[in-house]
Amino acid sequence: MSYTFATRTTGLRSSAIRDLLKVTEMSDMLSLAGGLPTPDSFPLADLRREADRLLGEYGPRVVQYSATDGIVELRQWIAQQYSIELARPVAVEGEIIVTHGSQQALDLLAKILIDPGDVVVTESPAYLGAVQSLELFQPRFAVIPGDEHGMQVELLAEQLAAGLTPKLVYVVPNFHNPSGATMSLERRKLLAALADQYDLLIVEDDPYGAIRFEGTPLPPVASFTERVVYLSTFSKIVAPGFRVGWMIGPPEVMSWVARAKQAADLHTSSFSQLLLANVVSQPGWLDEQKARIVPMYRDRCVALADALDATLGDRITFHRPDGGMFLWTEFPHIADTTQLLQHAVREGVAFVPGNAFTIDQVPDSKARFSYSTLAPDQLRVAVERLARAVAATG
Amino acid sequence: MSYTFATRTTGLRSSAIRDLLKVTEMSDMLSLAGGLPTPDSFPLADLRREADRLLGEYGPRVVQYSATDGIVELRQWIAQQYSIELARPVAVEGEIIVTHGSQQALDLLAKILIDPGDVVVTESPAYLGAVQSLELFQPRFAVIPGDEHGMQVELLAEQLAAGLTPKLVYVVPNFHNPSGATMSLERRKLLAALADQYDLLIVEDDPYGAIRFEGTPLPPVASFTERVVYLSTFSKIVAPGFRVGWMIGPPEVMSWVARAKQAADLHTSSFSQLLLANVVSQPGWLDEQKARIVPMYRDRCVALADALDATLGDRITFHRPDGGMFLWTEFPHIADTTQLLQHAVREGVAFVPGNAFTIDQVPDSKARFSYSTLAPDQLRVAVERLARAVAATG
Repeated sequence: MSYTFATRTTGLRSSAIRDLLKVTEMSDMLSLAGGLPTPDSFPLADLRREADRLLGEYGPRVVQYSATDGIVELRQWIAQQYSIELARPVAVEGEIIVTHGSQQALDLLAKILIDPGDVVVTESPAYLGAVQSLELFQPRFAVIPGDEHGMQVELLAEQLAAGLTPKLVYVVPNFHNPSGATMSLERRKLLAALADQYDLLIVEDDPYGAIRFEGTPLPPVASFTERVVYLSTFSKIVAPGFRVGWMIGPPEVMSWVARAKQAADLHTSSFSQLLLANVVSQPGWLDEQKARIVPMYRDRCVALADALDATLGDRITFHRPDGGMFLWTEFPHIADTTQLLQHAVREGVAFVPGNAFTIDQVPDSKARFSYSTLAPDQLRVAVERLARAVAATG
Repeated sequence: MSYTFATRTTGLRSSAIRDLLKVTEMSDMLSLAGGLPTPDSFPLADLRREADRLLGEYGPRVVQYSATDGIVELRQWIAQQYSIELARPVAVEGEIIVTHGSQQALDLLAKILIDPGDVVVTESPAYLGAVQSLELFQPRFAVIPGDEHGMQVELLAEQLAAGLTPKLVYVVPNFHNPSGATMSLERRKLLAALADQYDLLIVEDDPYGAIRFEGTPLPPVASFTERVVYLSTFSKIVAPGFRVGWMIGPPEVMSWVARAKQAADLHTSSFSQLLLANVVSQPGWLDEQKARIVPMYRDRCVALADALDATLGDRITFHRPDGGMFLWTEFPHIADTTQLLQHAVREGVAFVPGNAFTIDQVPDSKARFSYSTLAPDQLRVAVERLARAVAATG
């Protein structure tokens, strides 16, 4: 049988990470490849109690069709949170849309914004899931390098001055995946100023912001300009399996997003939205949850970083992140970490080579290590295995 | 502020039905406009018991990230069901993808199949949600009229012989929304034969198939050819608020769907999938659920049809459907049922004018009445109100 597919499928690559995850399901493999939150962080007892209350007391509306922009209880909680975070009133109607994870937000934005050939600005390295969503709509990528203080916004300023006209600028300012970098306050302000000056639309993706274990929280880019669609999710602070995220943005953009959302899937699960809204709305709940889970990630990050320092010395370089789930590293003596990965898998440890996070995928000496799902002791064993793999690459 | 949107947003219309639903939220309005399943049909007690078991006994995987194509327990149930229904083995891997409602299946198919200008065959009248999903990708619609036996496939045969080359053919063979029609066995076989002859891809959307209250079930088009992507959902037989549907199709097509699904939202809610899989997999559960809910829809359909016959006589014509939720009618003396709707709303009853289900939206004398959410007594009162509205149109 033969079928003819749309030209946009040329932009559909399979995720190298997902393909790798298949290897990591082998027994005894210690995987630093995934980006899953630690299962210890899931508040199963709270979810169980609220699920029981919803299905016992709330009546049929918890499993009926609901509004495209989201269940009102959840939008009210989001509006309350972000009226503080953005230091301006965020409206329950018109500015918020609940999505099926923040991955869907990227898909909806790409759909309503990108014609083939339109310019999209991303960082390098970049979050692969975003690249996948955007790529399907055939943009041209303008790649701005990042450093330990996030995207080098000054370089974007130069390109804008030289005539670059992007349809959107995609950034992950807090504990970037994969780089772990946090964008500095100066760069956040500069990015906002550029958005106002050049009529840009910034997409500020913030899945990890709540997992800060060092330093002081910085205000989102969205607090400095209204030309931002801000994305976040329950995936890292409650649980990812419900697929509930949210977008906050200018009403003019969000009204198109709402239509695209209606065409895409009508609405996000009524039950999941109400369940999560009821859990997180309990007074003090979110602070307690953060106090419980942030130290888990801190301890793991420290264990991994200390072990890499102690074991690999100058054969590896990295900056310690202030939060999140990822340690971004460079092996100065290894030109292609895909080669290193092959040795590593033989030794029983997995990670993601750096080129998986680039648009052109040219081999490089970078690698992403996730410390989110292994305990400190396991992380130390993983680093011993990695050291043997490094030795084997000569 | 100003933003520039993609050209494809010209294809994004808001749903006339959704806009209407806002009117129908007025107190005392009897709405025959919606397409919601009756809340009495939701198995809340079973869902509550299984939710408690999942969150109490299954451990963190129920709320963790999961595979893009779906939780294996659910795919196993789907494979089992459709190996019987399609009279051939349906594989758990490669042929099935669980979607965020069947609306998402349409979005994913449109994404991987439709380039601007590609021909898509739909029926007239057509399911509006499908039109909305497809329209965003800027196809040309080739519209084949339907009658009380479904799409007039013989007319499609003529157009194919004359050179029409559609990218996909979208049909709703069981208890069509809005027409209520069921495609005859002969037409199903002819459609399958045309698919094989002309290398077509049929999209067979079957959300209502389980709600049959008259006659004998007919085999799906997918049982006569493999050139079909078959869609169904838990929305009508369990509950819509979880947004869980599924697609079954040729592996070559489904591998592209899987990549598009990964880019769109990673996967459908792990919790919702496991919950529904556990509920429907209980021996005999689905048969009992059908035995409980099908008579509700039958009684309502009969109550509405009898009241329309008795009250409006020859001012209305319709065929009684064999299942589903919709009665499709014509008012021979009314040229534009949008006018009738205005009188009807004043009398306290709502429905959807026929032109909402056409591509060109030219006013017509048709109307869709849903009997799914009102009890028989309410339906009789609704028809009294409608009769006053008909009288008021002169």
